[in-house]
Amino acid sequence: MPLKPDAQAAAFPLGGIGTGNVSIGARGELRDWELANRPAKGARLPFTFFAIRAEPVGGKAVTRVLESRLTGPHEGDQGYDAGRLAGLPRLADSRMHGQYPLLRMDFTDDELAVQVALTAFTPLVPLDADTSGIPGAVLRYTVTNPLEVDADVTIAGSLANPIGIVGYDVHHFPRFAGQPANAWADADGLRGIRFSSDLPDGDLRHGTLALATTDRQTTAKPQWLTGFWQDGVQVFWDDLCADGRLEPETAFSMDDPPYPPWFTKLRVGSLGIAHRLAPGASQDFEFLLTWHFPNRPRAWQGNINLDNTRAGEVVRNHYATEYADAWAVAQRLAKDLPELERHTRAFHGALFGSTLPPEVVDAVSSTLVVLRSTTCFRLEGGTFAAWEGSFDDAGSCEGTCTHVWNYAQTAAFLFPELERDARRTEFVHETRADGRMNFRANSVFGNAPWDFHPAVDGQLGSIVRLYREWRFSGDRDFLAECWPGAQRALEFAFTEWDSDGDGVLDSKQHNTYDIEFYGPNSLANSMFFAALTAGAAMAEEMGDTEAAQRYRDAAQSGAQRMDALLFNGEYYEQKLDDVDARRYQYGSGCLSDQVFGQLLAHVAGLRHILPAEHVRSAVAAVYRHNFRADLTGHHSVQRTYALPGEAGLVLCSWPRGGRPRIPFVYSDEVWTGIEYQVATHLIFEGLVEEGLRLVRAVRERHDGRRRNPFNEVECGNHYARSLASWGLILALSGVDYDAASRTLAFSPRLKNDGLSTIFTTGTGWGELILAPSGAQLRLLGGRLDLNSLTVAHPRHGLLAAGPVRLAAGGAIQLTASDPSDPKDHS
Amino acid sequence: MPLKPDAQAAAFPLGGIGTGNVSIGARGELRDWELANRPAKGARLPFTFFAIRAEPVGGKAVTRVLESRLTGPHEGDQGYDAGRLAGLPRLADSRMHGQYPLLRMDFTDDELAVQVALTAFTPLVPLDADTSGIPGAVLRYTVTNPLEVDADVTIAGSLANPIGIVGYDVHHFPRFAGQPANAWADADGLRGIRFSSDLPDGDLRHGTLALATTDRQTTAKPQWLTGFWQDGVQVFWDDLCADGRLEPETAFSMDDPPYPPWFTKLRVGSLGIAHRLAPGASQDFEFLLTWHFPNRPRAWQGNINLDNTRAGEVVRNHYATEYADAWAVAQRLAKDLPELERHTRAFHGALFGSTLPPEVVDAVSSTLVVLRSTTCFRLEGGTFAAWEGSFDDAGSCEGTCTHVWNYAQTAAFLFPELERDARRTEFVHETRADGRMNFRANSVFGNAPWDFHPAVDGQLGSIVRLYREWRFSGDRDFLAECWPGAQRALEFAFTEWDSDGDGVLDSKQHNTYDIEFYGPNSLANSMFFAALTAGAAMAEEMGDTEAAQRYRDAAQSGAQRMDALLFNGEYYEQKLDDVDARRYQYGSGCLSDQVFGQLLAHVAGLRHILPAEHVRSAVAAVYRHNFRADLTGHHSVQRTYALPGEAGLVLCSWPRGGRPRIPFVYSDEVWTGIEYQVATHLIFEGLVEEGLRLVRAVRERHDGRRRNPFNEVECGNHYARSLASWGLILALSGVDYDAASRTLAFSPRLKNDGLSTIFTTGTGWGELILAPSGAQLRLLGGRLDLNSLTVAHPRHGLLAAGPVRLAAGGAIQLTASDPSDPKDHS
Repeated sequence: MPLKPDAQAAAFPLGGIGTGNVSIGARGELRDWELANRPAKGARLPFTFFAIRAEPVGGKAVTRVLESRLTGPHEGDQGYDAGRLAGLPRLADSRMHGQYPLLRMDFTDDELAVQVALTAFTPLVPLDADTSGIPGAVLRYTVTNPLEVDADVTIAGSLANPIGIVGYDVHHFPRFAGQPANAWADADGLRGIRFSSDLPDGDLRHGTLALATTDRQTTAKPQWLTGFWQDGVQVFWDDLCADGRLEPETAFSMDDPPYPPWFTKLRVGSLGIAHRLAPGASQDFEFLLTWHFPNRPRAWQGNINLDNTRAGEVVRNHYATEYADAWAVAQRLAKDLPELERHTRAFHGALFGSTLPPEVVDAVSSTLVVLRSTTCFRLEGGTFAAWEGSFDDAGSCEGTCTHVWNYAQTAAFLFPELERDARRTEFVHETRADGRMNFRANSVFGNAPWDFHPAVDGQLGSIVRLYREWRFSGDRDFLAECWPGAQRALEFAFTEWDSDGDGVLDSKQHNTYDIEFYGPNSLANSMFFAALTAGAAMAEEMGDTEAAQRYRDAAQSGAQRMDALLFNGEYYEQKLDDVDARRYQYGSGCLSDQVFGQLLAHVAGLRHILPAEHVRSAVAAVYRHNFRADLTGHHSVQRTYALPGEAGLVLCSWPRGGRPRIPFVYSDEVWTGIEYQVATHLIFEGLVEEGLRLVRAVRERHDGRRRNPFNEVECGNHYARSLASWGLILALSGVDYDAASRTLAFSPRLKNDGLSTIFTTGTGWGELILAPSGAQLRLLGGRLDLNSLTVAHPRHGLLAAGPVRLAAGGAIQLTASDPSDPKDHS
Repeated sequence: MPLKPDAQAAAFPLGGIGTGNVSIGARGELRDWELANRPAKGARLPFTFFAIRAEPVGGKAVTRVLESRLTGPHEGDQGYDAGRLAGLPRLADSRMHGQYPLLRMDFTDDELAVQVALTAFTPLVPLDADTSGIPGAVLRYTVTNPLEVDADVTIAGSLANPIGIVGYDVHHFPRFAGQPANAWADADGLRGIRFSSDLPDGDLRHGTLALATTDRQTTAKPQWLTGFWQDGVQVFWDDLCADGRLEPETAFSMDDPPYPPWFTKLRVGSLGIAHRLAPGASQDFEFLLTWHFPNRPRAWQGNINLDNTRAGEVVRNHYATEYADAWAVAQRLAKDLPELERHTRAFHGALFGSTLPPEVVDAVSSTLVVLRSTTCFRLEGGTFAAWEGSFDDAGSCEGTCTHVWNYAQTAAFLFPELERDARRTEFVHETRADGRMNFRANSVFGNAPWDFHPAVDGQLGSIVRLYREWRFSGDRDFLAECWPGAQRALEFAFTEWDSDGDGVLDSKQHNTYDIEFYGPNSLANSMFFAALTAGAAMAEEMGDTEAAQRYRDAAQSGAQRMDALLFNGEYYEQKLDDVDARRYQYGSGCLSDQVFGQLLAHVAGLRHILPAEHVRSAVAAVYRHNFRADLTGHHSVQRTYALPGEAGLVLCSWPRGGRPRIPFVYSDEVWTGIEYQVATHLIFEGLVEEGLRLVRAVRERHDGRRRNPFNEVECGNHYARSLASWGLILALSGVDYDAASRTLAFSPRLKNDGLSTIFTTGTGWGELILAPSGAQLRLLGGRLDLNSLTVAHPRHGLLAAGPVRLAAGGAIQLTASDPSDPKDHS
């Protein structure tokens, strides 16, 4: 559904992996400037906007801010401060079509003689984190002249140089470290404004920006007049309105020097593109907005691990090793834009052109933003690191937290190198000699390991995820590098968490709810058995047959014992003699995460590690008891992500009574990451409709008016747990790729004759299209080299082919009934 | 119009003159905690709310947060953080009836067995600034039992001790200086919780609060459990839900000591009142919320005058010299509440029961808030001082700025001692030997005079206002104290601003638009002639007949000359050879403030100081050209207080062309203070409908959804210029009180047989009621000792009486046709 201008919560982020963002709101406005290696929700730049002037030949010129009108409330302690330009005319209406990574905005206004729409995006190429990490965006306004006469059209972008902003004064104008400067540039086939500052290269706030275009029909005012008052904007606006041509200012200011120390440092510059459009003609006005803030502090400086030993040092962003400055970024964007856009549109098309349920496409695409938000970053050398999420003004909960990132699937299947890098950090650098893993990585900055309880779910989940990464990549060197640490981490479970050696974990178990569970519970144990099963496969691969057998045995006997101990006929409980002996337990409750380990096993291709019927019963019970079509009647004194009148899945419920006096501290909350986890699992167990209902609940809550569709919040914006969403594609399409055996198999759970879905493998990605007559696999990027490809066709049974070798653009047809096709095994 | 829960901009402030505020929002929620001598819009306290539990005998208990439901957007970087308690059930609906100073909220909910409404207010007594300056509020919930069985009802207020808050952590919980502490108290006929802190008495953040009641049916949990997690709120809520009785906690925390230094300092306490209501019964549950933050820094620490020499010292609030602490405030409130409420309701009744147009009552009452907002304060000794307004987190533009406060009428006629005090500051302390007045007072803190251009409008307006204050009070000592400075200030105009000695001011004239006008203009000159006329009257009173004559002559000849020079047949222009020779002029423009000096003269009883016909033409032209029923089409790059689609009066327009390239920096803005000034003037000149149309425009913009009805913003919230509103009552009722001659006269401009209006004099206040048969004057407060009372009756002509002596509660009837009434002079 396109969003109307009053969808004030909506903000579509532009920017690549590890680059920060600027977003576009539902009125088409630029908002939330978060370019400088730090979250900054709500950060505005004064006088920063696009404007359009259209003058039919012989007609009346109309100039408008290229946004739809402000929707209110219209509060502010100085009304709308001058920098907001709320007193300038805007367009009558707009519709936002946000289909991440592509944004389209349609504007309408009866008084404007021409039609105008915006397309905006930052290139996204599956399996290519570097190319998906360009610090910049394309803003392409497309203007159509519906008249029977020519029309002169100018679109001008104005940008306040944001480099060095350290805060805002009482009038909401920025204060700066250093002196920003703007300069006109005409080089490398680009024209535009280079935004710089006199901050030294090594300064944390050092950076550059560019607002540029490959269009040669430019007109510009690279630097507005400065002054004690706002002369600059008056002159700019009058200049634009007058004839659609901008004149560079010949003076710096109308105020005479010398200037006092508090004289404004604000430097605004405007770049315009001007075209005459013939009747009926359409014309693109294309701007490139790029940025380059190379320097980060060499420390998390977060809210949990307070060791910031090297915070005084600077470390560069990965992208800064690829580009010298923002102008170089713009050059790259300009040079490669056709190809970059082709890839981006192919990905967009494979997702939004699929027959996957729209709520799933919506969930997967919108949460993908997390990877390209301030939550994630890459350091020089390529190291991937991430927060759990982003507070409005700072990162939230540092260290690529294992127990939160446990839930994330998107990176593993879309940018797998990032997850491999995280596993490397975990097992090579953060797993101690005794096998205890620091569940928040401090080594990415070269700082000392964090000293805290180990997290049972995070530590064991990472082992399953290591298996997932190895299986998807087939990278044996990677596995060999990580395995020693992984084996120590696995062995650690026996000694640390199994107090009585019965193969069921039962001691003090810190976990993703930020407290410790005690006694046997299926969250920790399902994760344990999944890790053991994954460990067995990896030990086998590493030639340690003895260990493999031991892990397999432990998984089987442990699962059996746990099942007998905790399954209550409907779901798995936590076994405690007195649920109130310690706070923060759940006892007889129905925990939404109760078989999360099983879900991770499914995703990693490990199949059932617990009795299938009991697992199915458990996830069905989670849906039955914990999903509320209307949360009215649910009392919670905890954080609130879903309100009475909304639908959501609570983390725990007590359908059989036994709620502790003080249950675990998030028990009554609703987290989208767990909703996706459970939804995925429901689908894996065949409860497709139930799974989709959960997904719809999440997305209905994020409708642009209530919440931002592109930001699922938990402890922070763009929360990593929401990346569980990609699992929905895995479960629905039933895709299973094993790089080692070079097999790719699909057994769709979405019973749909006409299914079309995106898929990825470690080396290539594309679409699988099921038609009544058979199946087609089209490779849209990378390459594919398979021993075997199989598709379970709902009508024709298993279609198979192999070996299959495809390059990007290639396709293979699996036809059921055509005997002339040698690959037809139906 | 009552406001619905989605009127999110609405916030009704509680608190007295110089005490700061806490506000109530449109859902009935407590918001904007601004008690600690500093604005703090948006400041929330976690876990701070009222709740109701109702249990019909034999029926089901229902417990609800005593607010209507959250209306969204539901964003926040951690959802709603735990302190918001968004996951607890709230009431289905509410309506806010805000009639300042009285608030009533009606709540509705089908599931709650009883009906509940809130009345909230801080006592307001006309002519009594001290009694109107109590740092506290009454929150009275009235519950009605519509059932045929008894109902047990508890209402509990919970308050987080806010003393010493220095900021908020990433989880939105406050950080504290010092350690807050809560204690139960049962003394002086009051029961409740005393909130204190271990901050030393002299600390700027030192303070106390009380949540108390005179009700004996209390139940309380003076301090919730503390802890690493939110055990306290879970236990509180369960305790309340269980039986409506709160148990004091026996433990401090469920977490074992020792506690780390970062252990929570948050101390929440709850006071409940519990009653059994018989069928059909109504019962008040009355809470007193009081506070006491005695200490301010002895300096403005503002954004303009940076001399804060004594900022390290502490000065006490005036209220702190009356009350030892918040408990003493509660005692006073409890003791005197019947009388305080009677006065408050009498004032409310006189205003809201009047037949003044509702938009006028709305404007006057809502802007009255300014005087009881963070914009104003009183220092020990009673000194009145004020900002221009309040930024969200700090005062805006310090020094009781003469050119802004020039517009304010409310204090002069409702709390005249405050304005007298401001005049004393201006003329005794801030007028230099040469007559130049510092238009921002720094002397209130004993700091050095501010060195800047003198402000022509502010300085001369203060002279008119001195006359107004003297005339209203009859306080000759006060006049004698101020006159020497006033005379110097008046003489200064001749030497400073009249470059050619022709009696028309024409040199560099700094003014309320924060720039300088040059050349003859009617804003400065109308103010000059008003000041001369006022000066003549005061010189006369002081026995300086020669000066009196000189001022009278100068006023007359100057007015004549200016009229000839500037009147263009329709309105007064600014005379400049080249309007663009200097920036920030208006030239041939139609300035809304062009005859503001004349308006001040009207208010002060000085009648026309410029040719009446030209004045009438000028204000009509202002209405014609500057009022826009819809601002669509108005382009402004300045601050924005009224948007396309809304109505408003712009500060200037150029109906005859000649707009400067860069006009004065606020020329395209819309200020409510000037809208009221012009509206008042239109009514004074007989253009009643036009005046009321302006007032409606202002109030329509402040509808609770777009903007807060109780906060008219300019450069800051609760902006002083909006206090121009009281002028509307003066103009409509045509009241004229002269304390020296002891005459009170009414010549209503609102042609309405049934007029009823509030009036004030220096010694008493009440209602004037015009009936078809005559008039009645009722004194509701103070006393009245008149030589003559006259009322221009629309049907019977002038009714008169005298001498008249009335005490509060007294009334006098002026009957037209009854010869038996000796006071009938019709």
